[in-house]
Amino acid sequence: MSKKARPQGRLLYAQSGGVTAVINATASAVIDEARRHGLEVLWARNGILGALGDDLFDTTSLSKAQVRALAHTPGGAFGSCRVKLKSLEEDRARYEALLETFRRHDVRYFLYNGGNDSADTALKVSQLAKEFDYPLTCIGVPKTVDNDLAVTDCCPGFGSAAKYTAVSVRECALDVAAMASTSTKVFIYEAMGRHAGWLAAAAGLAGKGPDEAPQLILFPERTYDEGAFLAQVDAVVKRVGWCVVVASEGIRDAEGRFVADAGGGTDAFGHTQLGGVASHLAGRVQQVLGHKVHWAMPDYLQRSARHIASETDYRQALAVGRKAVQFALKGQNATMPVIRRISDAPYRWRIEAASLERIANAEKTMPDDFIREDGFGITDAARRYLQPLIRGEAYPPYGRGGLPKYGRFGES
Amino acid sequence: MSKKARPQGRLLYAQSGGVTAVINATASAVIDEARRHGLEVLWARNGILGALGDDLFDTTSLSKAQVRALAHTPGGAFGSCRVKLKSLEEDRARYEALLETFRRHDVRYFLYNGGNDSADTALKVSQLAKEFDYPLTCIGVPKTVDNDLAVTDCCPGFGSAAKYTAVSVRECALDVAAMASTSTKVFIYEAMGRHAGWLAAAAGLAGKGPDEAPQLILFPERTYDEGAFLAQVDAVVKRVGWCVVVASEGIRDAEGRFVADAGGGTDAFGHTQLGGVASHLAGRVQQVLGHKVHWAMPDYLQRSARHIASETDYRQALAVGRKAVQFALKGQNATMPVIRRISDAPYRWRIEAASLERIANAEKTMPDDFIREDGFGITDAARRYLQPLIRGEAYPPYGRGGLPKYGRFGES
Repeated sequence: MSKKARPQGRLLYAQSGGVTAVINATASAVIDEARRHGLEVLWARNGILGALGDDLFDTTSLSKAQVRALAHTPGGAFGSCRVKLKSLEEDRARYEALLETFRRHDVRYFLYNGGNDSADTALKVSQLAKEFDYPLTCIGVPKTVDNDLAVTDCCPGFGSAAKYTAVSVRECALDVAAMASTSTKVFIYEAMGRHAGWLAAAAGLAGKGPDEAPQLILFPERTYDEGAFLAQVDAVVKRVGWCVVVASEGIRDAEGRFVADAGGGTDAFGHTQLGGVASHLAGRVQQVLGHKVHWAMPDYLQRSARHIASETDYRQALAVGRKAVQFALKGQNATMPVIRRISDAPYRWRIEAASLERIANAEKTMPDDFIREDGFGITDAARRYLQPLIRGEAYPPYGRGGLPKYGRFGES
Repeated sequence: MSKKARPQGRLLYAQSGGVTAVINATASAVIDEARRHGLEVLWARNGILGALGDDLFDTTSLSKAQVRALAHTPGGAFGSCRVKLKSLEEDRARYEALLETFRRHDVRYFLYNGGNDSADTALKVSQLAKEFDYPLTCIGVPKTVDNDLAVTDCCPGFGSAAKYTAVSVRECALDVAAMASTSTKVFIYEAMGRHAGWLAAAAGLAGKGPDEAPQLILFPERTYDEGAFLAQVDAVVKRVGWCVVVASEGIRDAEGRFVADAGGGTDAFGHTQLGGVASHLAGRVQQVLGHKVHWAMPDYLQRSARHIASETDYRQALAVGRKAVQFALKGQNATMPVIRRISDAPYRWRIEAASLERIANAEKTMPDDFIREDGFGITDAARRYLQPLIRGEAYPPYGRGGLPKYGRFGES
């Protein structure tokens, strides 16, 4: 507990975009760290919507046990949202509504926990506050299973989804190997990740060498060529007897069309809504090669799988929450606590402050030297990067009923 | 270690049909128990195919550590297969080839680890051995994630898949609840189970009461009526704000057509090949109700998820393996070790011998009093039955790399 004077005003915390297995761990650390400094935390319901509509939850009513339970509860305890504010000119009324909420509740610190869109919003809010001479410190707090944020070495949420992916692919590969003599010969696993192949790449940790599963990975960083893909599948089946493919949801053909064009909608961020790559590829393998195929699309399961969270990821999710509060109290406006890797083995990292300007709207895809020359696998450099991120098992506590004891907060 | 005389001949063990997270645990117990009695175990590669083609692995070469590792390794260590022998008349040559393999290797005990088709095969092999006066004791050993075997209270493999299902649905429901204000309002999870709704029912353990996820479950034991289903989804979204649906792969409409008719193939057992219910339902919800939908199809992930195995299931998988060897040595021909439930709370069970004739080709679907009157959920009776089966976490050991230390046996 700090002996220093109690800070002025309150802290407003909000989550944005797709939730993760550990974003509530970050929230738990934010609340705990703020309490150490005598700072009250308001939590906006449904992300920025709650801040715009003055729908805030006062976390001072949460017990210590509830704050602890937050740390092992997946999802977003008070809701997130997919709403992107536009430029200050276009969305001026909404930005001013935000400032109005801040004034009403004496909010002096704004922590926005999300991806690159959220970093952009936090940056704009800080600019507006300056324009209106309102004393506000804005901090972006990183989160995304896609691992596509710039500057930070990795993103809280990714390590756990990566662990889920690698473990699931190793497990289902053992299943396929057992069945291949008379049944399924090709298995296709669809990974999230949007324009970045990080989650698909994590599946590569499940095996080593060209004959271990996954034998083929399809990255959005490489053009999808159906002929080349099917030839590879056929070659693997001939050599190994079966083949596990991991396909990133965001792969595109030479014309730039998403292979998962089945859905075709767009979300509130203006991104094409993805999904359906695995079923498409499975159909083609069956039609063209004639192999029996199974496929899996874990969808939200992969980003909410707190039961198989990575210990590294969990610790980093807590660390960015704590540091965000510390940066806020030091007045490090328009920054984000990012993870800086010091060494691969032993794995060492620390949290540093980075300017939101360097992160807002940028997107970090897989570097070339992480993708195998033939385009269908990961390199040793990728392994060195990915491996520490899935290390350790941060199991949630379980009840007598055999289910994790996840907290309930929404009704509070 | 038994002080008794070493039994005559050897034991042949084979796995059949879809593998599970704990079928190798049963194999591990078979080998360990046989060793206690000085009995050598041969393991047929790729199930009955290995027995037919004289492709047997001699398990005496497995170290104690390898036998222990089997117990926490999912899949089928030496392969399974989907080959169903027909009647003795139709498939006589193959049955005789089996007997020939038994003679060649002095096999006096045959343990066939599978579902109801395998119980039928084991029964027929026992009949043929009697006809040829060959001294053989045949034991069926239960296994199936579908939980559809007759006589036994539950099936090894089911409890772990059930735990995976309940945990995954609870987790993704927290995700959907967080996103529903601006994004996904309906989430559809597709469960395995063929003609039986047991795995879909297990998802019901994730919540209680009509407002907790999964709010709707679609069972193959009830006719799928699109109008009624969509009305229920709409009502739940209006009342709760979002809706999680769990759909069994085997649901059929009033004309008896599988909703998942997209695939439409048949496997070697003559069963229609299923898959694709969730994507179909998702499309209808989006088209008719206009809600944003996400869906998941975990497919093999649900039956190979050793990382979230149920302790109850694991213990039962070991127990049926041990008892199968004991029954074999006692000459309890044409039987299966089945699980008899003594009480729900505290949960008590024991292994008994049941005649294969009562199990062969029978199929146990969900009893009427396990399905809620409206057809879209489970009753308290179902909860009392299901709950003990997912209790306890039988975690596998993990390596420094953050992945489970699953054994490798295929190359041995």
